[in-house]
Amino acid sequence: MEGYGRSSMKERRREVLASLEKLGYDVYRTIESGEFPYVSMPSRSTRNILYDPKLRQYVLGGQTVKRTARNIRHLRPLTQLIWVATIAHQLCSQGKTSTLRDVFYMAQAFEVDFVDQYESDDIITDLETVVGLPREDFNIYPEERSSIFGDLTIEYTVPGYEGRRINLLSHPDGFVIGPTLSTAEFVECGAERVIVIEKGAMFTRLVEEKAYEKFKAILIHTAGQPPRASRKLIRRLNRELDLPVYIFVDGDPWGMHIAMVIISGSANAAHITDLTTPDARWAGVYASDITRYKLPSDPLTEIDVKRLYELKNDPRYRSGIWSKEIDVFLQHRRKAEQEAFSRYGLSYIVDVYLKERMEELG
Amino acid sequence: MEGYGRSSMKERRREVLASLEKLGYDVYRTIESGEFPYVSMPSRSTRNILYDPKLRQYVLGGQTVKRTARNIRHLRPLTQLIWVATIAHQLCSQGKTSTLRDVFYMAQAFEVDFVDQYESDDIITDLETVVGLPREDFNIYPEERSSIFGDLTIEYTVPGYEGRRINLLSHPDGFVIGPTLSTAEFVECGAERVIVIEKGAMFTRLVEEKAYEKFKAILIHTAGQPPRASRKLIRRLNRELDLPVYIFVDGDPWGMHIAMVIISGSANAAHITDLTTPDARWAGVYASDITRYKLPSDPLTEIDVKRLYELKNDPRYRSGIWSKEIDVFLQHRRKAEQEAFSRYGLSYIVDVYLKERMEELG
Repeated sequence: MEGYGRSSMKERRREVLASLEKLGYDVYRTIESGEFPYVSMPSRSTRNILYDPKLRQYVLGGQTVKRTARNIRHLRPLTQLIWVATIAHQLCSQGKTSTLRDVFYMAQAFEVDFVDQYESDDIITDLETVVGLPREDFNIYPEERSSIFGDLTIEYTVPGYEGRRINLLSHPDGFVIGPTLSTAEFVECGAERVIVIEKGAMFTRLVEEKAYEKFKAILIHTAGQPPRASRKLIRRLNRELDLPVYIFVDGDPWGMHIAMVIISGSANAAHITDLTTPDARWAGVYASDITRYKLPSDPLTEIDVKRLYELKNDPRYRSGIWSKEIDVFLQHRRKAEQEAFSRYGLSYIVDVYLKERMEELG
Repeated sequence: MEGYGRSSMKERRREVLASLEKLGYDVYRTIESGEFPYVSMPSRSTRNILYDPKLRQYVLGGQTVKRTARNIRHLRPLTQLIWVATIAHQLCSQGKTSTLRDVFYMAQAFEVDFVDQYESDDIITDLETVVGLPREDFNIYPEERSSIFGDLTIEYTVPGYEGRRINLLSHPDGFVIGPTLSTAEFVECGAERVIVIEKGAMFTRLVEEKAYEKFKAILIHTAGQPPRASRKLIRRLNRELDLPVYIFVDGDPWGMHIAMVIISGSANAAHITDLTTPDARWAGVYASDITRYKLPSDPLTEIDVKRLYELKNDPRYRSGIWSKEIDVFLQHRRKAEQEAFSRYGLSYIVDVYLKERMEELG
């Protein structure tokens, strides 16, 4: 339990500022004592990415790397890292957000040299690794936005909106999940579960079919692979409010993996441990649903099949429903979209399919 | 003026239903009188797409095409068209929405044969042409969603939310523009203009920098080329509330064309005449801004240059700022993103650049 309660967002912000300041002080102190400054962090090389069965996600192992001003080849990334930390500190203390792209451009005013955005993104990932927090915690967001709808009252913590509340049932097209929603406190919740949906059209379908009433559910639209801000929000809904989470995606290896990333993270975010929701459940479309519900389907492409074999090599896919459904995919070699249920009319998906699935998953 | 006032959304819905019913009656009557049923509509072939300088957008010319049951090759598209009209009528009378994709799948239950979604999309465009209304009016939406934020109170008209109101300042991350917002009435507006923004990150920037207060602006995020629902909304804000519209996009041919499509439509929607906002203004990033503001920039790619020459052939780009800025692009051969202003810190874009631009555009 992370212990997010009322006012915990402020504490969180203080912690973030404190860890950035610690990084600065450490460098400072080393310089003052006449030594070369350095920063140590866990290595993110493939060999140091391990699956932790207890945490049920990928984590970094014990190998560390050191960036030291003593080594001339380290000078550049070390300077960049310290600069990014300074910018992150500014953003947090001023209550402003920026994007990965903004950071790349901001660097130019400081004559901090980044060849391209890949380089600045990479340094931001270094900073995440050093302080052990996702970049969203120091107010650096990606471009993508997902959205939410359901019986949850939130209270904003951003400057200018502090203390204001809104109930997320009040706009049926959905509320964009951006920096203000991500940092809001949960005040009151009338929902009993969360349904995460891959596609916007299906999100709208579930709103119109009143899935939020029928299942007492908060609906979250990820728009494909979910941005980390929404993965974090899903985790918070699960941990802080104790809501079970169901993930409803297209019936293909890509949809399957969207569910898996929400549940147990991705290897390239192994340095961050609070984005996952290990107790979330993949709720479909399963490979076996295609035959069970006689869904309109398409043949798997070569790339789909290749992807399925890749997933088979991932330890998380080696047991349970994951391994079983991969085998079914490889057997019938077909895939189906969430919208395929429209074959049975627009209400079927909620009144029949999801109803049955929720009962099965319990 | 379209005359959207309070309760006009209901009238609009009645009109849509009436035109779909008329289509059905006409076919029915022809059959009853012992003749082959047919449907006539304006031709959408390139030769029949003309630029109308008075309407300031592309429109269809006088050529018509006829789909008749007398011709065996017409039987299939004619049947598909009547089926789509039936579905559209059902959606409207039940107050449900669907997507282009849903319609493709729904057809399977009726054994209406579509080879692929291109074919069903095309028939839906036929229906738009026949009744002269965009598919959003008969509740068929695309997948994409844009978002909005600003001092505008709306009143919903969708079943279950009828009469409920919300002020669009109440969620700073933005409200998703979906079917419910698209059909809402405008009740009260404290804003004096609309700023349309291409990118989500810049939308968030403008919210944080309080552009909505400083410019008394409603902010709309298009997420690239705007979905038609948001183009319609922009038009309504301009026509019904008399708000001037400023479009702020990346400084490249693609951004330029996003602005142009909002202003005067696209050739492939020439059969619909109420999606455009001819008085909207392109507010930047101009090619000349790159030198004027010393923006970080990238060289134009070959594809960018090719695109600029294509735009040069479009009659709408042959005069004024459009032609001037195309020439500047081709001169310095550089492009810049909206985020490039972050070079001067995060407030510059609002406090300096947009302020100057708004004053210049008046």
